[in-house]
Amino acid sequence: MANKLFDIIKSDLAELETALHESVVSPVATITEIGNHLIKAGGKRLRPAMFFLAARCSENFDLKRVMPLAVALELIHMASLVHDDVLDSAATRRGEATANAKWGNQLAILAGDYLFAKAFVLVTENGYGERVNNQLSRLLADLSAGELIQNKEIYKASCDTEEYYERIAMKTANFLAISCQLGAHVMGLPEKDVQALYDYGYSVGMAFQLTDDLLDLTGDSKTIGKPAGNDILQGIITLPAIRALETSPDKDELLSIVTNRDMTKEDLNRALEIVRATDGIDFTKNKVEEYLDRARNVLPESIPEDVRAAYMMAADFIAGREF
Amino acid sequence: MANKLFDIIKSDLAELETALHESVVSPVATITEIGNHLIKAGGKRLRPAMFFLAARCSENFDLKRVMPLAVALELIHMASLVHDDVLDSAATRRGEATANAKWGNQLAILAGDYLFAKAFVLVTENGYGERVNNQLSRLLADLSAGELIQNKEIYKASCDTEEYYERIAMKTANFLAISCQLGAHVMGLPEKDVQALYDYGYSVGMAFQLTDDLLDLTGDSKTIGKPAGNDILQGIITLPAIRALETSPDKDELLSIVTNRDMTKEDLNRALEIVRATDGIDFTKNKVEEYLDRARNVLPESIPEDVRAAYMMAADFIAGREF
Repeated sequence: MANKLFDIIKSDLAELETALHESVVSPVATITEIGNHLIKAGGKRLRPAMFFLAARCSENFDLKRVMPLAVALELIHMASLVHDDVLDSAATRRGEATANAKWGNQLAILAGDYLFAKAFVLVTENGYGERVNNQLSRLLADLSAGELIQNKEIYKASCDTEEYYERIAMKTANFLAISCQLGAHVMGLPEKDVQALYDYGYSVGMAFQLTDDLLDLTGDSKTIGKPAGNDILQGIITLPAIRALETSPDKDELLSIVTNRDMTKEDLNRALEIVRATDGIDFTKNKVEEYLDRARNVLPESIPEDVRAAYMMAADFIAGREF
Repeated sequence: MANKLFDIIKSDLAELETALHESVVSPVATITEIGNHLIKAGGKRLRPAMFFLAARCSENFDLKRVMPLAVALELIHMASLVHDDVLDSAATRRGEATANAKWGNQLAILAGDYLFAKAFVLVTENGYGERVNNQLSRLLADLSAGELIQNKEIYKASCDTEEYYERIAMKTANFLAISCQLGAHVMGLPEKDVQALYDYGYSVGMAFQLTDDLLDLTGDSKTIGKPAGNDILQGIITLPAIRALETSPDKDELLSIVTNRDMTKEDLNRALEIVRATDGIDFTKNKVEEYLDRARNVLPESIPEDVRAAYMMAADFIAGREF
């Protein structure tokens, strides 16, 4: 999100980096070391960005006041990625070695646990109130449950669209929704604006995850940093493939490939070919547009023009992104 | 702790089992399934027991009020065991298949994450106040940091007694201390009694972990459910071995065994022989007695006789236990 469009929160995001590094300082050197590595490896900081924008809807915006919560949101995200990379035995993320590759699965699992805990320590010692604490713990429960459903269903080609939406809601949309909601809530916006910003975050989050899933099928190593079809290779079925499994003349062949744990590179390429020959990609692109329209329309009238512009551009960014 | 001595909290512990099962009911069937398996596999319920006793120091004891927090404490413990078993690739615990053995590492890691989160959900939706939320999150941070230190140091034979005490404090003593403290705090006991019960829990916890570490060296498969020397086999050095590494005439031989990741069964037996020939066992037993004396002496004057008796017996139980 290091984009000119986000000038309004550029300094917030810059200070976030410092605060993130401070948050992982520990008497246990390995914690500091793993923490700093994860922070330096970067990321879009999408959750804190959404959070800062919501907080900036208030005239009383106070960066010091909201910073620990922004850090907590990113730490929870970071911790869940650390555990994801252990689950997937991933060697790199964003071109950097993963924690499991560098320190082994054991330390990576524990570092993830520590970062989850640290997020809650930060939030509970800054007196945001029990509602915030409760939202964050529910968020973490949903995140793990969403990942759990996804992992449970691998190589099963479960074709249930509803289940797919529920899963990406738990994994991503819910997180962006709560990021917006908390920024608005902590800065004391009226309840109806808090709810509207929650809805914005949810819709943008659905669009974001759908785009992620699209890029996995249409992107290439150069743009997305991993070979196309990685989801299928890992047994994860996303909307375009679900659509293809419903409508393709070659759906039986597709089904036999995506349920095979030992699929070859050729199998994978054939699966991609089958999916791309259907309307699965366009169908998903339309869904992205629907969610983004919903996001743009739900923004409250009352928010400052510069924040509205940034939120609008965030939606455009998601629609147009190729990475 | 299903002991006649604990009649005073017998019904609390019975209701805890029901509440634990309720806490893992989820629309995600796998979560309920893994949760129920873990609960049925049992455990001493030591943390809730300590917590209930502290809460019962108050005349206003209210089981309904304290139950969600008791459940949260046990869920945190359970989640950390689930992750531990993944770290150790353990196949059984208390004679039952571990979650990783039954559902694989991926689901076990996510189930652990979910249980951590669920503990916080329970606590934050029952309005115990931010102090309680903060204590619990610090507890979890310390637990993971303690495990992390332990894992980082495996096969390094780090002989630092201070570091050993710090590690078992983070892993165990701290948890029992906070269990006592929270029971007393939530039921509104005077601050000095809250502190005294914290100190009791801490001392009993140190004694408990020291005994655990002793039994690992002196017990056998029948009594402790795993072969003697399991810690050494996993590269974990505990107090008796630290003592032996300092005082044994065969300390060089011991050092070369315990730092060897490929030690054989014969190596391990030789290491046990060397440790047992020193005063390491007695030295540790004395430490256990010191901590238990401290625990007995720190109990507040004002607490009800039956609670005091139970706390005293908990100390005796730890001193005498062989499993």
